[in-house]
Amino acid sequence: MRAMVLRGRDLTVEDVAMPAPGPGQVLARVRACGICGSDLHYARFAADMQRDSGVLRNADLGRGVVMGHEFVAEVVEAGPGVEGWRAGDRVTSVPTLVVPEAPRGMHSIGYSSDYPGAYGEYVLMSAMLLLRVPNHIPDRIAATTEPTAVALHAVREAKLQADDRALVMGAGPIGLLTLLWLKREGVKHVTVSDPAEPRRVLATKLGADLVLDPAAEDVATRMTEAAGGPANLIFECVGVEGTIQQAMDMAPARGRIVVVGVCMLEDRIRPLVAINKQLNLQFVLGYTREEYQEALEAIADRSIDPSPLVTRTVSLDELPDAFASLSDPRDCKVVLEFEA
Amino acid sequence: MRAMVLRGRDLTVEDVAMPAPGPGQVLARVRACGICGSDLHYARFAADMQRDSGVLRNADLGRGVVMGHEFVAEVVEAGPGVEGWRAGDRVTSVPTLVVPEAPRGMHSIGYSSDYPGAYGEYVLMSAMLLLRVPNHIPDRIAATTEPTAVALHAVREAKLQADDRALVMGAGPIGLLTLLWLKREGVKHVTVSDPAEPRRVLATKLGADLVLDPAAEDVATRMTEAAGGPANLIFECVGVEGTIQQAMDMAPARGRIVVVGVCMLEDRIRPLVAINKQLNLQFVLGYTREEYQEALEAIADRSIDPSPLVTRTVSLDELPDAFASLSDPRDCKVVLEFEA
Repeated sequence: MRAMVLRGRDLTVEDVAMPAPGPGQVLARVRACGICGSDLHYARFAADMQRDSGVLRNADLGRGVVMGHEFVAEVVEAGPGVEGWRAGDRVTSVPTLVVPEAPRGMHSIGYSSDYPGAYGEYVLMSAMLLLRVPNHIPDRIAATTEPTAVALHAVREAKLQADDRALVMGAGPIGLLTLLWLKREGVKHVTVSDPAEPRRVLATKLGADLVLDPAAEDVATRMTEAAGGPANLIFECVGVEGTIQQAMDMAPARGRIVVVGVCMLEDRIRPLVAINKQLNLQFVLGYTREEYQEALEAIADRSIDPSPLVTRTVSLDELPDAFASLSDPRDCKVVLEFEA
Repeated sequence: MRAMVLRGRDLTVEDVAMPAPGPGQVLARVRACGICGSDLHYARFAADMQRDSGVLRNADLGRGVVMGHEFVAEVVEAGPGVEGWRAGDRVTSVPTLVVPEAPRGMHSIGYSSDYPGAYGEYVLMSAMLLLRVPNHIPDRIAATTEPTAVALHAVREAKLQADDRALVMGAGPIGLLTLLWLKREGVKHVTVSDPAEPRRVLATKLGADLVLDPAAEDVATRMTEAAGGPANLIFECVGVEGTIQQAMDMAPARGRIVVVGVCMLEDRIRPLVAINKQLNLQFVLGYTREEYQEALEAIADRSIDPSPLVTRTVSLDELPDAFASLSDPRDCKVVLEFEA
C-alpha cells in the first residue's frame, strides 16, 4: 500500500507493507485523516518529543514512521476474534492500537514504526475501541473528531464556573474548537486572539464574542472593556515560547490558565507574576475515550460544527507539500482525503 | 523610637518618628517579630518585587522602609473610635493596616514607607483585625503565626485527597510548617527534601515520614519506594531557579504542584514535561484572615507546634547582622525579640 513516511525529517510517499490484523484488530481503508499540529511538531522536533513523551517510545525515525491519527476509515477485514464489525462499516476511534505483547499493551496509532498510521491507504484499528460514524457526517468532518475531543478535554479540565470570561489565545483548529465548546457549554463571553487575519475571520464566523489581533491591540484591556471584566480563564492554544508568560501577564488574580498548546522548546516564565496572582496552570493532553465519543456525538447532532475549520483537502501525493505549506495562516485544518 | 530601616539595599538601626494611631488603629509595642524569607528577598530584589507585586506600591526605598510583618505586640494606646482593646493586651494580626484614604484602603505592614513595620519598637495595627494571643504562647512562638498561616494556606489550596503522597521540597520555615499541617490534616506519607543537614534534622524531628538529601539521593525514586508510590502532590518551598522544573520532572501523571517558594528571577521550564503528565500548578501567596486565625488557634491548642523551628532570637541591634547571616542553614526561623 502507499503511505507518507517520515524518516529523519524527510517526508516521502512510498510503498510500505500492508498491515495484517491481529486478534481483536480490524484492517480499515482510510477515508480521511486530518493533519495535526502535533505531526508538524513531530516532523520538526521528534528528538525532543521522544525524550519527554512516554507515548512515543515505539517510534524509530531511522526505520520510519507513518503518522496520522485523526482518521475516519472503512472496515475491510476483521482479525481473529472480532465480532460485530463488517466490511464497509465506517468507523473512527481513539488512536490506540491494542497490542497485548507491546511493552504497555498498546501502540499509539500514528507514532509507531511497527504499525502505520492513517497517512496511508490502510490502518489497523482495535475492534473494542471502534465507534460507528453516522452516515450524514462527511469524511472530512468526521476526521475532525480527534481535535474536537482535544478541545472538549481542555474545556472539561478547565472546570467551568458560572461567571467565567474566557480568552482563547490562538485560532488554529484547537483554539477554534475550544471556542465552539465554550459557547456550547454556555460561557457568556469568549474572546479569541490571533495575529493572522484569516484565522480571526474564522473565529468571528464561529461565534466568538470578541476577536482581537494581539500584534495590534492590547488584548487584556480590550477584552476587559468588552466583557465587563478580565479573562479569568485563559486557554493557551498557541504553543510557542513566551505564550505561557503572556497568559500569566494577562490573567487577573486567581485566574486559571489551561495550557493546551504544545511548546516543544524550553520556555521562560516569571514565577513571581503567577505567585502574586495565585494563578492556576492546568496542562492538558489528549482526551478520554468518553470525551472522544462525546465529540463524535456532538458533531453528529450538529451542536458542534467544525466544518468551517476544514479549509482544504489534499490527496496522498499532495500531502508532503501540504506539510511544508501548513504554516500558511490561510489554511486552518487541512485533511488528507482518499477517493471514496 | 528605634527601628531597622531598609534604604536602597542598606539595613541600619536608626531613630524614626513614633507613629500615631489614627481612627480605628492602635499603637502597639512590638514584643517579637520573625525574620521572613520575603524580607531577605525584598532587601535584595526590591525593584523586581515592586514591578511584579501590587501590594508593595506604598514602599519607597529612597525614603526607606521599616520591614517586619510576623509580629506579636502589646497594645499601648487606642486611636479614636477603638473599643474593646486596652493597654497591655497582647495581640497579633494579618499585616494589614486599614487606611481609608490610601489608594487601596490599606497599607501592607512591613512594606510601606508611610507606616513602620515591626522591625522597630512600635507598630500601628488595625483594631478590627486584632486577635488576642493566649497567655501560654511565648512571644517567639506567637511570632510564627504568620508563616504558619502561609503554610496552612498552601495546604488548603492543594485540595488534599485521601490518597495523597506529599513531597515538600525545602525545609525552611515554610516547608517545615507545611509538613506540620500535612501531618495534622492526616496525609499518610510526607517526604521532605533539603540539601542542608541541620534542616533535615529538623524535618525528622517534626515528623516527616522520610527525609532526603536531593544533592545525594534520587528523591523521586527513594520516595516512591518508601511511600509505595510517587509524590502526586509536591510543595515547592525553595523558590530558586530550576525548582519548578525539578518538581515537574519528579511528578507522576496528573501530579499537583503547589508553588509556595518565591523565585524572584526569571525561570526556565520545559512545558512538554508538564503537558505529557497533565500537571497542575497552583501558585499561592499569603492567606485569608480566617486562615490566620486558624493558625493562631492551632498553635494555641498545640496541634501545630512551631517551637523547634525557632532556632535563635536576636535583639534589634543584632538584626542587621542576622539578615546578613540568615543564609546559614543552621538557622531556621530567627526572631527579633524585645525585652518584656
